[in-house]
Amino acid sequence: MTQSRSLEPDLVFAARLADAAWAAIRVHFRQLDGVDDKSGAGDTAAFDPVTEADRAAEAAMRDLVAAERPGDGVTGEEFDDTPSSTGYRWYFDPIDGTRAFVAGLPVWTTLIALVDPDGVPVIGVIDQPVVGERYLGWPGGARLDTHTGSHPIRVSDCEDLRRATIATTDPFIFTPSEQGAWNHLRATARITRYGLDAYGYARVAAGTIDLVAESGLKSWDVAALIPVVRGAGGLATDWRGNTPKLGGQIVCTSSQAVLDQALLALKRAAD
Amino acid sequence: MTQSRSLEPDLVFAARLADAAWAAIRVHFRQLDGVDDKSGAGDTAAFDPVTEADRAAEAAMRDLVAAERPGDGVTGEEFDDTPSSTGYRWYFDPIDGTRAFVAGLPVWTTLIALVDPDGVPVIGVIDQPVVGERYLGWPGGARLDTHTGSHPIRVSDCEDLRRATIATTDPFIFTPSEQGAWNHLRATARITRYGLDAYGYARVAAGTIDLVAESGLKSWDVAALIPVVRGAGGLATDWRGNTPKLGGQIVCTSSQAVLDQALLALKRAAD
Repeated sequence: MTQSRSLEPDLVFAARLADAAWAAIRVHFRQLDGVDDKSGAGDTAAFDPVTEADRAAEAAMRDLVAAERPGDGVTGEEFDDTPSSTGYRWYFDPIDGTRAFVAGLPVWTTLIALVDPDGVPVIGVIDQPVVGERYLGWPGGARLDTHTGSHPIRVSDCEDLRRATIATTDPFIFTPSEQGAWNHLRATARITRYGLDAYGYARVAAGTIDLVAESGLKSWDVAALIPVVRGAGGLATDWRGNTPKLGGQIVCTSSQAVLDQALLALKRAAD
Repeated sequence: MTQSRSLEPDLVFAARLADAAWAAIRVHFRQLDGVDDKSGAGDTAAFDPVTEADRAAEAAMRDLVAAERPGDGVTGEEFDDTPSSTGYRWYFDPIDGTRAFVAGLPVWTTLIALVDPDGVPVIGVIDQPVVGERYLGWPGGARLDTHTGSHPIRVSDCEDLRRATIATTDPFIFTPSEQGAWNHLRATARITRYGLDAYGYARVAAGTIDLVAESGLKSWDVAALIPVVRGAGGLATDWRGNTPKLGGQIVCTSSQAVLDQALLALKRAAD
């Protein structure tokens, strides 16, 4: 592997990747004409929509990497991994929250991450272009770019799960033990929200949600979240409180206190 | 009561009411400093957030009605009813989806309706100012106004609940029999979304959601939805398929076929 590189050009490049993704996606949003069903046409319970937009956006981002970061690897949902000669690897999820996308809701996001040779996500972008919000994180900082400007973001000062606003994507996809843990959190917290996918983590970073816990995630779901949440002063661990893997169970919180309270329940359902 | 009046000036006026509401709300969104708990500080399970924004926005709209529609009545969540001498009554919910608002999510809405002397909602506005979307409905039409223009909206052509995207606000607030009915719909439909409050009905009107079913609604929750969904070609009934009351159980669908399929389950839990 190589020595670590300056991340500032990569942060600028990551924002350009997000622009390229939206250019490919925007003609399809609320104009669906290519909803496929990865899980088989007859399996409505496990419907997993993928659109032309997803494929076109990932292809656009991969083209940019091939042209401007040819040594970096790419991992994404839609196409095979490409090799890395630099040790750095980009992770793309062009449309995280495909169900929200299909339903025409402005809470799906484009996820972009750069992972360093040690496997640590060092740049994360959570982009919601319909609302015009781009959340960016890097070691030591995070910011929100909108059409009217850019400002640093910071997690809330919530220290008590009983006062917390919490979120998970789907209360019905948990395993039974995960469901039990989640029900404990839900019964303890003040407000619970569903269906946000990565947008929930963006709002942890921006201070209006205090905890998100999910399971069954893929590497391209997770990699972008960690730098954004950590850069804003939050915590990201697995359900045992350890360094999260790029996938599986993850919990992000505004504070160590909220994390500790949540882990009392989450640990019992940890993989 | 009086004879019916031309609604075009009222539609323009309703849009001005939405502007006034957002002017009062925007300084508070994601800047929460006045979250109250109507249900009592110790009752976290039934937390019902209300903000200064809610009160300020309703007051601003009431002031406009008093100045420009002094004979019309007003019903809203935050203040007492005012009398009507015209037979017409405005219904205001400045922040429908207070939990989404507190969580900093762009899916809360401002609801504005005008109900005629026969009790029929004839104008509805579902306004989401963060995204910049204003859904308006009236007898025979509906449109979506955004920062870049205005265009007519139309429900989807979905005729099959098995292919439908459906939504309800909270799967955990139903009564047991309502929960049973909802579980039937959820198991049948293709995609289910939660936490949308009135924004879900707006997306029924705009053709990306095919059914929303809810219960326990108040008059100011319901009155604005009906003209928007009906104006876009959709259907709005109670859970028996009858003309909805201004409150309680409501179901809105893109088509009679989806409604008929849903009523098979909903009727069993109808009030």
